[in-house]
Amino acid sequence: MVKRDARATRARILAAATSEFAAHGIAGARVDRIAASAEANKNMIYVYFGNKEQLFAAVFSDGIQRLLETVPIDADDLPSYAGALFDHIEQHPELSRLARWQGLERPAAVASFDTVAATMTKIQAVAASQKAGQVNDRLTPDQLLSMLLNLAATWSDGAPELDSVEVTDAMRASRRAAVVWAIGRLTAPDRSATGGRLSDIPVAELRGT
Amino acid sequence: MVKRDARATRARILAAATSEFAAHGIAGARVDRIAASAEANKNMIYVYFGNKEQLFAAVFSDGIQRLLETVPIDADDLPSYAGALFDHIEQHPELSRLARWQGLERPAAVASFDTVAATMTKIQAVAASQKAGQVNDRLTPDQLLSMLLNLAATWSDGAPELDSVEVTDAMRASRRAAVVWAIGRLTAPDRSATGGRLSDIPVAELRGT
Repeated sequence: MVKRDARATRARILAAATSEFAAHGIAGARVDRIAASAEANKNMIYVYFGNKEQLFAAVFSDGIQRLLETVPIDADDLPSYAGALFDHIEQHPELSRLARWQGLERPAAVASFDTVAATMTKIQAVAASQKAGQVNDRLTPDQLLSMLLNLAATWSDGAPELDSVEVTDAMRASRRAAVVWAIGRLTAPDRSATGGRLSDIPVAELRGT
Repeated sequence: MVKRDARATRARILAAATSEFAAHGIAGARVDRIAASAEANKNMIYVYFGNKEQLFAAVFSDGIQRLLETVPIDADDLPSYAGALFDHIEQHPELSRLARWQGLERPAAVASFDTVAATMTKIQAVAASQKAGQVNDRLTPDQLLSMLLNLAATWSDGAPELDSVEVTDAMRASRRAAVVWAIGRLTAPDRSATGGRLSDIPVAELRGT
């Protein structure tokens, strides 16, 4: 029973910390509020997770792991992958906020081993699809992945966008379709085989398809 | 001389506030530090700008105005526009950080009249280029603009990206070329005239070009 209680307490702390960090960021988060909301002892938090920075790292890593499990990459169908990412991001607004706070407050944070490994796996999958001629190879695989993740999050929570109107279901569906279409465009192989990475070509020649 | 001094003080306060807000966000910024750094009286700040929120609004609006003046939209050449945006964002890392803090901390902030007017002008320019057949019209003009701004800022300061390596000039040039190429792809008119907005078409039919 003790072990089971510990697991439950740990889960309550993670849930409370997710809300607190998503709302206020790392500097703005208060461990007191997390403890109160989780009905946990403040010392317990330090025992389980270490300091506030380490608690944030645990919360963020947890969210990324769930994303990776729910939305595995399909490098032969990147438009569908982008659509699935869009859905996950919409369903977990706290995750995009955590990622944005991390970008602003901990830019030099070292990602967990699991996250780095997952990123490497994705880059290799995209590279393989490019090599097989399935995916346009003008962008490097990491550039394409960064753009894909970024585009899928264009309208996500915390985005620096002018979005004062209420978002309807129809708008959401239209945005999802826009993301899927855009990634289809960016990944479709060239009709004329110009070949070579963009980085080898003068910028002036890079317009259009 | 008094007026000239007042202008100089105002400019020093804005510069100091820009650095402070870019580094710490709105909640994290300290008016004391801004006053010290600007060698200005703290009361002077309240007299000139109002409270901390209003000072942030003045700083952000100032940055957006300079962006709008430096990089006017060219809706007939959106890839070049995206490249010019990329350059401005690279040269003003504080601006992308201010925009990101605003997205997280003041999501419901009402944009200034000038900014709203500028956005409307851009949307109308893109809509006109779409109508003239110069720019692909599968996306609504506001969707296309949001994606363009977002893509141009993929690797900007404060972005939620894994970017632990040192960014070289060659990487920067390659990223700029990637942005210009991507917008070229997204804006090139369809070869086959399928017509109609994406939002009217089932998602399953939206893959590829």
